[in-house]
Amino acid sequence: MENFIYQNETKIIFGKGTDASVGAEISKYGKKILFHHYGDGIIEKIGLYDRVVQSLKENGIEYVELTGVTPNPRLSLVKEGIEICRREKVDFILAVGGGSVIDSAKAIAVGYYYEGDVWDYFTGKAQITGCLPLGAILTIPATGSEASRTTVITNDDGHIKRALDGDEMRPRFSILNPEVTYSLPKYQTAAGGVDIMSHVFERYFTNVVDVDLTDRLCEGVMKAMINIIPKALEDPNDYIARSEIMWAGTIAHNGLLGTGRIEDWASHMIGHEISALYNMTHGATLTIIFPAWMKYVYKENVNRFAQYAVRVWNVEQDFENPERVALEGIRRMTEFFKQVGLPVTLTEGGIPDDRIEEMAEKCTSRGPLGNVKKLYKEDVIEIFKLAK
Amino acid sequence: MENFIYQNETKIIFGKGTDASVGAEISKYGKKILFHHYGDGIIEKIGLYDRVVQSLKENGIEYVELTGVTPNPRLSLVKEGIEICRREKVDFILAVGGGSVIDSAKAIAVGYYYEGDVWDYFTGKAQITGCLPLGAILTIPATGSEASRTTVITNDDGHIKRALDGDEMRPRFSILNPEVTYSLPKYQTAAGGVDIMSHVFERYFTNVVDVDLTDRLCEGVMKAMINIIPKALEDPNDYIARSEIMWAGTIAHNGLLGTGRIEDWASHMIGHEISALYNMTHGATLTIIFPAWMKYVYKENVNRFAQYAVRVWNVEQDFENPERVALEGIRRMTEFFKQVGLPVTLTEGGIPDDRIEEMAEKCTSRGPLGNVKKLYKEDVIEIFKLAK
Repeated sequence: MENFIYQNETKIIFGKGTDASVGAEISKYGKKILFHHYGDGIIEKIGLYDRVVQSLKENGIEYVELTGVTPNPRLSLVKEGIEICRREKVDFILAVGGGSVIDSAKAIAVGYYYEGDVWDYFTGKAQITGCLPLGAILTIPATGSEASRTTVITNDDGHIKRALDGDEMRPRFSILNPEVTYSLPKYQTAAGGVDIMSHVFERYFTNVVDVDLTDRLCEGVMKAMINIIPKALEDPNDYIARSEIMWAGTIAHNGLLGTGRIEDWASHMIGHEISALYNMTHGATLTIIFPAWMKYVYKENVNRFAQYAVRVWNVEQDFENPERVALEGIRRMTEFFKQVGLPVTLTEGGIPDDRIEEMAEKCTSRGPLGNVKKLYKEDVIEIFKLAK
Repeated sequence: MENFIYQNETKIIFGKGTDASVGAEISKYGKKILFHHYGDGIIEKIGLYDRVVQSLKENGIEYVELTGVTPNPRLSLVKEGIEICRREKVDFILAVGGGSVIDSAKAIAVGYYYEGDVWDYFTGKAQITGCLPLGAILTIPATGSEASRTTVITNDDGHIKRALDGDEMRPRFSILNPEVTYSLPKYQTAAGGVDIMSHVFERYFTNVVDVDLTDRLCEGVMKAMINIIPKALEDPNDYIARSEIMWAGTIAHNGLLGTGRIEDWASHMIGHEISALYNMTHGATLTIIFPAWMKYVYKENVNRFAQYAVRVWNVEQDFENPERVALEGIRRMTEFFKQVGLPVTLTEGGIPDDRIEEMAEKCTSRGPLGNVKKLYKEDVIEIFKLAK
């Protein structure tokens, strides 16, 4: 096990009816907030918008709204948010939505304290100097941004998608009411579900040995997700299914499952390039890339991939041929992705193959990716080919 | 799944050599500390005492020492600690030791802000009004006190052991260096290990249905502990074994595994009565009580006890007779407790049976115990009888 520091201060308020507490929570931190949301009419339709506004009013909290967040949140809107926060003297940011809204809010919160171009944080040109306090009401379980230290923003100028990390950005609180996810379409439910699983993959697949405890925690989350995603697809109003997915989304990405391990994240980086060029849903890029990545790297650590197959996908161990077991695990995972309605090849995802080299170039421009196997541009091209 | 609020702000600093950071961590909170430890010479012998003092000096932190903590920490020492903190104008408490030192430190920290008798907190006569910030260097993985919201203190006047909960009492940081546990004797290693497992039992055994995600997290911790405790007993200097046990101890009791569930805690309460009268190590009371408690209550929820047997103890499911499976799981657990050298009956623990009624009376004096089955005095007597 590697040395580590772990701290996650986000307060999780979980369950039915919990969104009514948002005003009281905010009043501990601020009096005038940026109320950041999609503006696509969904939170209005399910009554969440009215409940938030009522709770803000009851607690004497003023708000300025900023809408227009897109699935891969854009830098231009972040800059607009920073301007508004400065002009309106906002002291807290409330994100109501999925990971894209929360990520956008995080970028605004740190950008508020930086006089230069906030993109400098994402390119490594500048270090975070401060962060407005922020909170979230989660409506799409997927990215884990509700308790993570990460934001992912797309620079609309060059279609570049980049992540930024910092403990300052963890939300002070996140309200998780599974009922607000009843209206999520099947595709988004599935894509969010596999995004959650993929956050576990990125931690589970490591060359660090003797990490049995966190291995088993990872396996527990993966197995629970395999059981529960189909239930949520079958009955969108299944409270249990919605609540298990929602809480798994936080646990998968709050940092705990990676403690003492060296994580990978190559597949996420490759997937980000697809999203940046083709604006594809993050989860769908992962169901395309992960099977290909696994096929490309499993020989680096056959035992771990066999363990994954046996413990997570119930493949029977073949003691004479663990490689066969590893491959069967990858096959069952791929079948599961298909079963929940997601693409598992570039072709199925409608992604042409004429810009593969460009994507491989971009995602390795700052050095090789991953840790199970260090991936250079040529490796990434091979993975794209396996994903065709 | 039940609604819940979850927040755990404790910063965990984990790994080799991490105790050298104690002075730097404390300097964020205070300049003059109470340095609370056993005083039995062990931390001196393993060099930890010197490393702490050096780190305090390097960071310009003054300290007053208070030693004399016993395995079931006493109220009288807590009162002495409160007096010292007031007299010396201490602004931070550092606990270096196992759960008993951390629990003692927590009680001092809250008692500092209360003019009356600090025991009033434990009897419910008073509410916590404040808490000095505290931090810990853990030397015995067991109670989970390093990141929990609980302290358990024994009133030496009446041999009454009581728990007190409060989020204020969570340590600001806890330093977990597995190397400092190499010198733990086998008995303490085993007793600490089963204490960790028992914190999972108290959460796992619930009548709340549809909690698959946290079920699987609980099972992961239990399975990891079953694998790793014997390794630490075999080779006390096995860093991997020591580190897995140490991190499991925190995860088992930091609150995460109980989210959305109704917990039980009857066995802990019964065990506390044995410790209070006979000063028995907490973990040993649990290996005596849990098998008896399980045999007494499993019929309330046969499926859950069968799931425990199958998933945690690898019992093969008998679809026609899950009761047999449940009992086989209890049997294998009991065998495991014996294998690691702990008593599984009152007789083996050297506990006479002449004060059973008194203990049953005391632990139910504030109402029935537990949730899987509500236990009244007569039930507790039956459990004691099963434990003979």
